[in-house]
Amino acid sequence: MTNAVRILGLDPGLRRTGWGVVISEGARLSWVAHGVIAPDDKAPLSDRLLALMEGVGALVEAYRPDECAIEEVFVNTNGQSTLKLGHARAAAMLAPARAGLSVAEYAAREVKKAVVGTGGADKDQVAFMVARLLPAAGGVAADAADALAVAITHSHARRLRRLGAAA
Amino acid sequence: MTNAVRILGLDPGLRRTGWGVVISEGARLSWVAHGVIAPDDKAPLSDRLLALMEGVGALVEAYRPDECAIEEVFVNTNGQSTLKLGHARAAAMLAPARAGLSVAEYAAREVKKAVVGTGGADKDQVAFMVARLLPAAGGVAADAADALAVAITHSHARRLRRLGAAA
Repeated sequence: MTNAVRILGLDPGLRRTGWGVVISEGARLSWVAHGVIAPDDKAPLSDRLLALMEGVGALVEAYRPDECAIEEVFVNTNGQSTLKLGHARAAAMLAPARAGLSVAEYAAREVKKAVVGTGGADKDQVAFMVARLLPAAGGVAADAADALAVAITHSHARRLRRLGAAA
Repeated sequence: MTNAVRILGLDPGLRRTGWGVVISEGARLSWVAHGVIAPDDKAPLSDRLLALMEGVGALVEAYRPDECAIEEVFVNTNGQSTLKLGHARAAAMLAPARAGLSVAEYAAREVKKAVVGTGGADKDQVAFMVARLLPAAGGVAADAADALAVAITHSHARRLRRLGAAA
């Protein structure tokens, strides 16, 4: 039986939103695509959010993911940054939600633990392990690497849930 | 000449988003409708945001506003609250943005100043003045009163801009 699941991972940000698509099939993981959405930062906020939502919407149409996953964001000591991240994250979540897809959420620590093995890993370690786990991806910029890491985390988490359910 | 402009005002929140529609025609202001959108707070975040965006989208379709206005939100000392507000505000802004409408932003102090005359006014004073300025609205709950206040603020601001431009 085939259980291939296409997963879209998202690392939201108002300036740059990383994205990555992987296929998870049993223990096997394969790379499909990745990239960054960067709305014009001189446009009004509502237009930037729209560009972000429509950008993710285009990915959903192009790659037809079965499930989506997004990183929970840091609550910054800078309130304005936190507010902006909230805006960006909502815009990114709304595109899969409109397509009827579930959007799983993972804390940064969970993502690092799933990909590197320790919740305290830094960005470079995450990018290194993403390159190891998905060699076909080639060189991946930091935002896209984080998005692929979220997708990988989701593939692990759903596999653990299935194994747990079968036990 | 007629310069009637329909304005949709929004007071965003993840639990309750107030809305109000007014018509501004020269110095005259008239009430059209108001209410509150309250997504199911037990649903997953992405579904709540979708309900919020679609709720505002339905208002845009039903009332065909010419312009929209939204309150800038407080950056709370509680980061999680700020993050949630950011999510809700983005979802509320995206519906008019999708319809090609501009979304003006006003700080809470500007709204209070425009409606009550002082930036330090409290919620009750805002609700009281909204009821005075829009007697046809009848009794208005706090969230909807704030949304009507934002719409009133926008009608004042655009009128001042027009008077300024004509001078």
